Amino acid sequence: MTKQLSLCSKPGYCERHIQNSFAQVLYDFTAEPGNNELTVKEGETITITNQHIGGGWIEAQNSRGEVGLVPEDYIESDLLNSLVPLQTLLSTTAHANNASNGNDPWSVWNTDATGGSSNNWASKPEGTQTGKSAAADPWSSAAQGHPQAYQGPELYLLCKQLVKGKDKLPIYMGEVGPVWSYPETQLDCVVADPKKGSKMYGLKSYIEYQITPSTTNRPVNHRYKHFDWLYERLLDKFGSAIPIPSLPDKQVTGRFEEEFIKMRMERLQGWMTRMCRHPVVSNSDVFQLFLTYKDEKDWKTGKRKAEKDETVGVMIFSTIEPEAPDLDPIEVEQKCEQFSRFTRAMDDGVKEILTVGQEHWKRCTGPLPKEYQRIGKAFQNLSSVFNSSGYQGESTLTDAMTAAGKTYEEIAQMVAEQPKKDLHFLMETNNEYKGLLGCFPDTIGVHKAAIEKVKEGDKLVATSKISPQEKVTMAKRVSIMSYALQAEMNHFHSNRIYDYNRVMQLYLEEQVKFYETIAAKLRQAHSQFTTM
Amino acid sequence: MTKQLSLCSKPGYCERHIQNSFAQVLYDFTAEPGNNELTVKEGETITITNQHIGGGWIEAQNSRGEVGLVPEDYIESDLLNSLVPLQTLLSTTAHANNASNGNDPWSVWNTDATGGSSNNWASKPEGTQTGKSAAADPWSSAAQGHPQAYQGPELYLLCKQLVKGKDKLPIYMGEVGPVWSYPETQLDCVVADPKKGSKMYGLKSYIEYQITPSTTNRPVNHRYKHFDWLYERLLDKFGSAIPIPSLPDKQVTGRFEEEFIKMRMERLQGWMTRMCRHPVVSNSDVFQLFLTYKDEKDWKTGKRKAEKDETVGVMIFSTIEPEAPDLDPIEVEQKCEQFSRFTRAMDDGVKEILTVGQEHWKRCTGPLPKEYQRIGKAFQNLSSVFNSSGYQGESTLTDAMTAAGKTYEEIAQMVAEQPKKDLHFLMETNNEYKGLLGCFPDTIGVHKAAIEKVKEGDKLVATSKISPQEKVTMAKRVSIMSYALQAEMNHFHSNRIYDYNRVMQLYLEEQVKFYETIAAKLRQAHSQFTTM
Repeated sequence: MTKQLSLCSKPGYCERHIQNSFAQVLYDFTAEPGNNELTVKEGETITITNQHIGGGWIEAQNSRGEVGLVPEDYIESDLLNSLVPLQTLLSTTAHANNASNGNDPWSVWNTDATGGSSNNWASKPEGTQTGKSAAADPWSSAAQGHPQAYQGPELYLLCKQLVKGKDKLPIYMGEVGPVWSYPETQLDCVVADPKKGSKMYGLKSYIEYQITPSTTNRPVNHRYKHFDWLYERLLDKFGSAIPIPSLPDKQVTGRFEEEFIKMRMERLQGWMTRMCRHPVVSNSDVFQLFLTYKDEKDWKTGKRKAEKDETVGVMIFSTIEPEAPDLDPIEVEQKCEQFSRFTRAMDDGVKEILTVGQEHWKRCTGPLPKEYQRIGKAFQNLSSVFNSSGYQGESTLTDAMTAAGKTYEEIAQMVAEQPKKDLHFLMETNNEYKGLLGCFPDTIGVHKAAIEKVKEGDKLVATSKISPQEKVTMAKRVSIMSYALQAEMNHFHSNRIYDYNRVMQLYLEEQVKFYETIAAKLRQAHSQFTTM
Repeated sequence: MTKQLSLCSKPGYCERHIQNSFAQVLYDFTAEPGNNELTVKEGETITITNQHIGGGWIEAQNSRGEVGLVPEDYIESDLLNSLVPLQTLLSTTAHANNASNGNDPWSVWNTDATGGSSNNWASKPEGTQTGKSAAADPWSSAAQGHPQAYQGPELYLLCKQLVKGKDKLPIYMGEVGPVWSYPETQLDCVVADPKKGSKMYGLKSYIEYQITPSTTNRPVNHRYKHFDWLYERLLDKFGSAIPIPSLPDKQVTGRFEEEFIKMRMERLQGWMTRMCRHPVVSNSDVFQLFLTYKDEKDWKTGKRKAEKDETVGVMIFSTIEPEAPDLDPIEVEQKCEQFSRFTRAMDDGVKEILTVGQEHWKRCTGPLPKEYQRIGKAFQNLSSVFNSSGYQGESTLTDAMTAAGKTYEEIAQMVAEQPKKDLHFLMETNNEYKGLLGCFPDTIGVHKAAIEKVKEGDKLVATSKISPQEKVTMAKRVSIMSYALQAEMNHFHSNRIYDYNRVMQLYLEEQVKFYETIAAKLRQAHSQFTTM
């Protein structure tokens, strides 16, 4: 089955291979009698017997041979994971969290939407979403394991005819070096108004989001599976040149729970904003279709067209036109190495913040407020003992002491709620970057493979594998690839500086407010004591 | 040996019984060759063979029969403890911390004067200083275990001749009820300038403190052992009517370590201030002698006189003269019960604050600053990665991010140091009150025993144990005792309100400063980010 996957040029989820494959059950599902459903338990392995039931259902068989319908969202159905029990993955990653999180930026496997003390940045087993092995470290060997690597950059480096016409992607020389062509007005969109819909006579429910682009200001509706379709198209088309971050995870618990929906929407908004900000992605036909389709027919036509697009994978480089002289292959390699080093170092830095932030989150929502509460209670208890003294004039002290005690209880509450106000955004931003950085090894891998190919040029000519002219073409095309990588890195840097500036400001602003509010509350408590 | 103690009218340390008794070694002591010294190990049990060596030394024999000199401060030489290995006591109290701390208010058995994260309010084994059994709960039965209880209040209730003359202690009816006679100007003193002295050709060192009373403004010098002598005299003389808190513990580690000396001086100051504030104690001959002796001869004469004072124990009540009508015995009992309930409830409240405060201290000096430090480091690390990007204009972000990281490191430092600035005083005050409250069961016990005696009046008359006149005298005298208790409770309440008002204000003031400083630091860090 691993072989099957490696032959498939489509990274990630691949429908063709789901037929009759194993799948892992993610949550308990109890069949309703008379509906041809199958009761399954979390952790159970089932065999998918029919993927094409529709309406969000698949047909599956359990180990006792019983066959029935199961909601598709309740199972993890990609291929590699179907061979590895979930528990194994979970326990493996606990020891292997050095491995980068690949295309899995919003890892939420322990979303507890009800508990205030939970957080959503716990490490997820590697690859549960994209079909990668849990053991694979995307940084260890750049090209390893990614379907695009099997396709290889030769397809582009040696192809005879390049794409002509309207789809050209120019690269200009800006102040910071090679840059994509940016539109005058940046596209933006609002993801809002999640609505519950249902199919199959209410048997299967889903959430539909309203997306309103700044260009038309006309809302379109999309379900999560449409976002997922868009992601697959963008990854197919641009993934070799532009890191396309994964979508936020499918829900794990509380599918219709308010907080979960809010969180997913927030993350879908983040994903869409990032895509809108990218000049190449946001300007693409498929992205524009997603945002501005007029009606169901328009959407279906556009979908079919997008799925037939042949300028995908490494062929995207054939559309790129830098307005600059060819680069020396040594410089190309140096740039590539530099970006590789940087993204790798940043990946470490981001993960450190996530780890530290997660611990801080736990302390702020767990032991710390409990302690402030106990301090508050202790003051109040002592105050109430004092009140029982029978000594006159006692209330001048006890009223103030009780107020001080209550203030510490309020502080406890504030401490527990603060992470949602500041740490949350710091974590979300870093989590988003973790996901984005996890895409770089693949993107950089394509470049490294191309550079290696060009290095072999003389040998290939000598053994008549390629002509001398093809060798020249290869060098020219690897220079084009390098311009694309540089434009992308400059895009990344500019966005990164903007994002971190923003999130650090927001974090510090909220922290200042937090400490000032505490100081003000304590000052108020202090003022209630009489000076003697 | 327990019997011997119960026959002794002097509570606490009793020199007569130290001869040839066991003692527990508190710290390792290595004998210097040729000095007739004995090497002993912490936890070892030795036999004291000669208490009267002088110069701070005692002669002792170890279990191997070797005899030699040991510094008296290195051993725990009271009687009951000599029968119970220290480790047993330590492990017992860990499970029995409901037991009140008796006459042991400043329990410092794990003073780590060097470590910033240590604190000094850990529970100490009960009675290691005063010779009480570790298992005895002073609240459980008021009269239990205290030497005064064996002496009994009858001595006063039935004595023929009362003390006449100048030593009368009047009680007036004030606004709050019975009150002691307060001086127009409150006595105060400053304990300062600890100096190292030595005896025995430098073999034995000690610290001498300078005490300057506000009345004479002329400093006198005293070693800890002089304070201890004063404490014994005050306990002897006033202990039945006035709770006399124990002195701060003898040192445990780092005898000449600066921080330890500072801490002991601070606590001696606290003890002296409390004694000065008490109108009866501060006005007593022995206390005045301690504060104002003119020279060594004056001191020695005064000492001898004080040691010969016969108005000690319950006889102190014979000097008390309330200017109010006799109280009904039922009212006497109600008052006593009320005070008993109150001091017991306050003891619980104070211990709750100590427990909570100790945990908070640990968190503030342990995990919390470590976490802020890690947050600070994580920001700085990410900033330094960003700096390596090669992207122009990077420094606008990285300078600010590094500053933010450093700010969190500063906050870590502040958090770790804050308890010394605020929690310390809250803890010290509550610790002092814990000690003071631990004296009440004994004081109240004397009253309860007297009340019981009066209740038996008719029976005692019927069986000709006392005359009818003596029964009347007893009732009158228990009323006098009740006035004394009420005056003392009113003194306690008034001081308590003052102390808690002060310490709460101080705590909140410092807390406000702390949070305001953090807010200001973060505001400064925030201002370094450029708005984009």
